[in-house]
Amino acid sequence: MQIPLLPDLTHPALTARLQHLIDQKTKPLGSLGKLESLALRLGQILGTEAPQLQAPQMLVCAGDHGLAARGVSAFPSDVTWQMVENFLAGGAAVSVLARQHGLALTVVDCGVAKGIAPRETTPGQPRLLLRKVAAGTQDASQGPAMSTAQCETAIQNGIDVVRSLPGNALLLGEMGIGNTSVASLLLARLCGLPITECTGAGTGLDAAGIARKCAVLQQALDANASATKPLAALAALGGFEVATLVGTVLQAAAERRVIVVDGFITSAAVLVASRLQPWVLQRCVFAHRSGERAHGLMLEQMQAEPLLDLGLRLGEGSGAALAWPLLQSACAILREMASFEAAGVSGQSAA
Amino acid sequence: MQIPLLPDLTHPALTARLQHLIDQKTKPLGSLGKLESLALRLGQILGTEAPQLQAPQMLVCAGDHGLAARGVSAFPSDVTWQMVENFLAGGAAVSVLARQHGLALTVVDCGVAKGIAPRETTPGQPRLLLRKVAAGTQDASQGPAMSTAQCETAIQNGIDVVRSLPGNALLLGEMGIGNTSVASLLLARLCGLPITECTGAGTGLDAAGIARKCAVLQQALDANASATKPLAALAALGGFEVATLVGTVLQAAAERRVIVVDGFITSAAVLVASRLQPWVLQRCVFAHRSGERAHGLMLEQMQAEPLLDLGLRLGEGSGAALAWPLLQSACAILREMASFEAAGVSGQSAA
Repeated sequence: MQIPLLPDLTHPALTARLQHLIDQKTKPLGSLGKLESLALRLGQILGTEAPQLQAPQMLVCAGDHGLAARGVSAFPSDVTWQMVENFLAGGAAVSVLARQHGLALTVVDCGVAKGIAPRETTPGQPRLLLRKVAAGTQDASQGPAMSTAQCETAIQNGIDVVRSLPGNALLLGEMGIGNTSVASLLLARLCGLPITECTGAGTGLDAAGIARKCAVLQQALDANASATKPLAALAALGGFEVATLVGTVLQAAAERRVIVVDGFITSAAVLVASRLQPWVLQRCVFAHRSGERAHGLMLEQMQAEPLLDLGLRLGEGSGAALAWPLLQSACAILREMASFEAAGVSGQSAA
Repeated sequence: MQIPLLPDLTHPALTARLQHLIDQKTKPLGSLGKLESLALRLGQILGTEAPQLQAPQMLVCAGDHGLAARGVSAFPSDVTWQMVENFLAGGAAVSVLARQHGLALTVVDCGVAKGIAPRETTPGQPRLLLRKVAAGTQDASQGPAMSTAQCETAIQNGIDVVRSLPGNALLLGEMGIGNTSVASLLLARLCGLPITECTGAGTGLDAAGIARKCAVLQQALDANASATKPLAALAALGGFEVATLVGTVLQAAAERRVIVVDGFITSAAVLVASRLQPWVLQRCVFAHRSGERAHGLMLEQMQAEPLLDLGLRLGEGSGAALAWPLLQSACAILREMASFEAAGVSGQSAA
């Protein structure tokens, strides 16, 4: 496994040209709010004053977690493979939203416990990729969830999957019963925060359930106390879908694709990737702030400003899909809006 | 002018069916956050468990304001007609966003100071309707902005315009240099709030400019002290575009169209309409919380929960257009997402 190298995207001349272009559009200065900073970022990532998003890819990485046997989730592990089938059949939220927005949907079995049968791909339908490292991780409360070799294989799978996809935008999604626990553990370990601050209700635990989850997660931190570096922490605490996502983020960033980050779990993958290559954050658009409490903390750690705040806590990539039209709008504003001069509109009076 | 009568939309049986349908979708309970309450509302407005948005109409009402001569805006009044031309030529933000989302764009001259020339309509292009009550309102700091008859004409124009439009969804937009002042005045008068709390930067005043604007607006409130009822306040303080919007809201609500409210000024029209017919609020979806400070206050007065919070303060209907795909998503979720039973997905464990 070789981590792709990323150049710094900061390009003062292009940034200045983009800002000037935005400021000359027929609107009061700054009046399109976050859409303006989004337009600037998309122009920077794609390296042009007329960015155009092409062949967007929604990638949903799925895996199971040994920790789930410890009762850290409100749903049983079987839901992971059942939802993979639901994604492929077109009935899940991310399937519906991907269809609405013309996002190509690829589901990757990164390490689902049950065998997922390969199938023929019908053009225009969701596609399944089998990149299973193992049938679920080990129970992290008893020792490392993955071996170093398994973790590297998963990351390499992510790199390879992105290399095989067309387009210039990657939307991140995930599925894995127990994976909010993984995100909480990675946040606690990589940012040095107490696990109680990093842990929430996930798919719907009550207060007693959250307390039990916290105790199990503290055991996992204790059982893997020496795993402090990003890759070591990912192997010890992470899931196969999270490690695969880390690979997709590194590769997409190296190719200057726009990376649309969904919620708590995909943000955890970006957190790990950014500790390996800080500049991945320049390529990311954070779609939303999740209803999962600790996601706000995680976003702060990456100085990320999300677009939406709708109390979503579903994952799958659903929030990334919901934010997608805003990215298209930002590009359209840059490309199609008239300037004061071209439209013959008077500018702001001297104050 | 006859104000359309509205029946209460509350229909406990339909509401219960919609909520059950949402809760049975393959996702943790409540995990789609505000998208779930949006789906419920759209089902209630359109009276069905399978809502479908059809032929959405973006209506941009434009007018000029006598108050503008008092320096309450950072832009000169000429910008109103210049922007009307920009809307029609396709170069404004709302033109770009309406095109992106397939929203039919109609611009209404409700009372622009300059004569706007009529023109041929090309199918699929923005359309101009001339419903000018007068060439701008009087200066409200010296007395009523409109006569009662003018105000009623503008409201009737709004009613008639909506009657002539197809579809089951109306997106509200506006243009009028000086009309954040009108919204501030209506908020202060109808909700009994001090004008300082209701006044902001508009298109970009500095602190001194806001202080001057406040002083002028206080004069307008004093000069129209007896105009306390909704219609009287609208005539005394309002603009032709705001009064026309009041008519569009009343008519769209009576026809059970979905009303997508943009920012501070269109919200002011909804505030007035809701004081005439409280049930209009059941038909409204509030697209966003504006960067104009007092918009948050106004939304609270109507117990409105907006979808987006992007620091937008452009108006035109741009925020309504940006939120539009979320309404389509909410309908798609209701119509297309699988239930736990249909998809064979296990439900939540007993806690």
